[in-house]
Amino acid sequence: MSSPSPGDPLAIVLLSGGMDSCVTAALARRTCTLALLHVSYGQRTEERELHSFREIARHYGVERRLEARLDHLKVIGGSALTDASRDAVSARRPDSSIPDTYVPFRNTHLLAMAVSWAEVIGARSVYIGAVQEDSSGYPDCREEYYEAFNCLLRVGTRPETRIDVVTPLIHMSKEQIVREGLRLDAPLHLTWSCYTEQEIACGRCESCRLRLNGFRAARAADPIPYRAT
Amino acid sequence: MSSPSPGDPLAIVLLSGGMDSCVTAALARRTCTLALLHVSYGQRTEERELHSFREIARHYGVERRLEARLDHLKVIGGSALTDASRDAVSARRPDSSIPDTYVPFRNTHLLAMAVSWAEVIGARSVYIGAVQEDSSGYPDCREEYYEAFNCLLRVGTRPETRIDVVTPLIHMSKEQIVREGLRLDAPLHLTWSCYTEQEIACGRCESCRLRLNGFRAARAADPIPYRAT
Repeated sequence: MSSPSPGDPLAIVLLSGGMDSCVTAALARRTCTLALLHVSYGQRTEERELHSFREIARHYGVERRLEARLDHLKVIGGSALTDASRDAVSARRPDSSIPDTYVPFRNTHLLAMAVSWAEVIGARSVYIGAVQEDSSGYPDCREEYYEAFNCLLRVGTRPETRIDVVTPLIHMSKEQIVREGLRLDAPLHLTWSCYTEQEIACGRCESCRLRLNGFRAARAADPIPYRAT
Repeated sequence: MSSPSPGDPLAIVLLSGGMDSCVTAALARRTCTLALLHVSYGQRTEERELHSFREIARHYGVERRLEARLDHLKVIGGSALTDASRDAVSARRPDSSIPDTYVPFRNTHLLAMAVSWAEVIGARSVYIGAVQEDSSGYPDCREEYYEAFNCLLRVGTRPETRIDVVTPLIHMSKEQIVREGLRLDAPLHLTWSCYTEQEIACGRCESCRLRLNGFRAARAADPIPYRAT
């Protein structure tokens, strides 16, 4: 495990507390000094995710942290992740290719926050653990979305600002992400992925299933406990 | 003044409570049913702006409103608009072409919120009163920024979603905006533009000066009172 040195460029990592963002932080810290951003948006498991964020930040000794809230995403609604009356376990509308857990345009809110913070603290990059290949089909997890966002970033910030959004996992499978996390000694035991539970992961929701499949394919044991697998 | 009819498509207007957004609402309602979005982000005059928002919404009889907060923009800082220790009257850094009142990447946050809401309520367009020609030089007030945002919008939302960000004032001068507001009988007396005061507009900050110059050029009287002009 390489350690960061003080002269490394500053990078903001969007760290939800899930496995993908944890591996992203592990990758970013090889070449960058980290600043960690966590956003709660009224999702069901927000307390548990914030706990994981803090534990991972402490594990890596990162002092520069921003914990923000986007409460209007819950007010706006439209997602099983933020609306308790919807089913987040088997959530896919029959008329849509997009799961019901999709939070409309969510990643744009997260990236906007990261970019605003990056402009102020002088970070040169924003890392986000979006996964296209093996993901749930969210439109804002695809490579073309990030290309478009980088275009927006270039025209929407000060002329002297140079920030890139970086997506190191975008073409990885969950198996590859697990292997990368193990290789980098990422603290996967501190992460949380379940969409529905906050004590013991359900093992049944889309996020748990993708994660467990990744560990199985990598022939590794997931270090967190599950209610049912 | 034309009145909206129930069959008109639904449009979200970002209504700060300033003159430009008020004229934008007046333009949008000629062809659309309005939904009004106001965002407070810890700016100095947020209470006064919210008051104007509510008065304009009431004037037009719009029930569909969303009042949201972006408190993290104040936490992130970096702008004279949200940082009381900076001078918002004569705010321009010697080393930058961008005024110190620029809030880093602010309009991306506002548009992200409008687009999330638009996806949920089925609005077809998002109107924003950005002005390029006669504005303060903010990077996120230029036409190319909105072109880039519309590209992001197409790849970052559900495939069945069709939303356009519309900027009817983008190439207008303040004089033209005043004339357009008067022509459409927009309630300019209810608007607020001052960056620093909440009781009587200062008449000295960049926003007051641009507004007053617009009224002078249009040979019209600004219906709101000023401390000094």
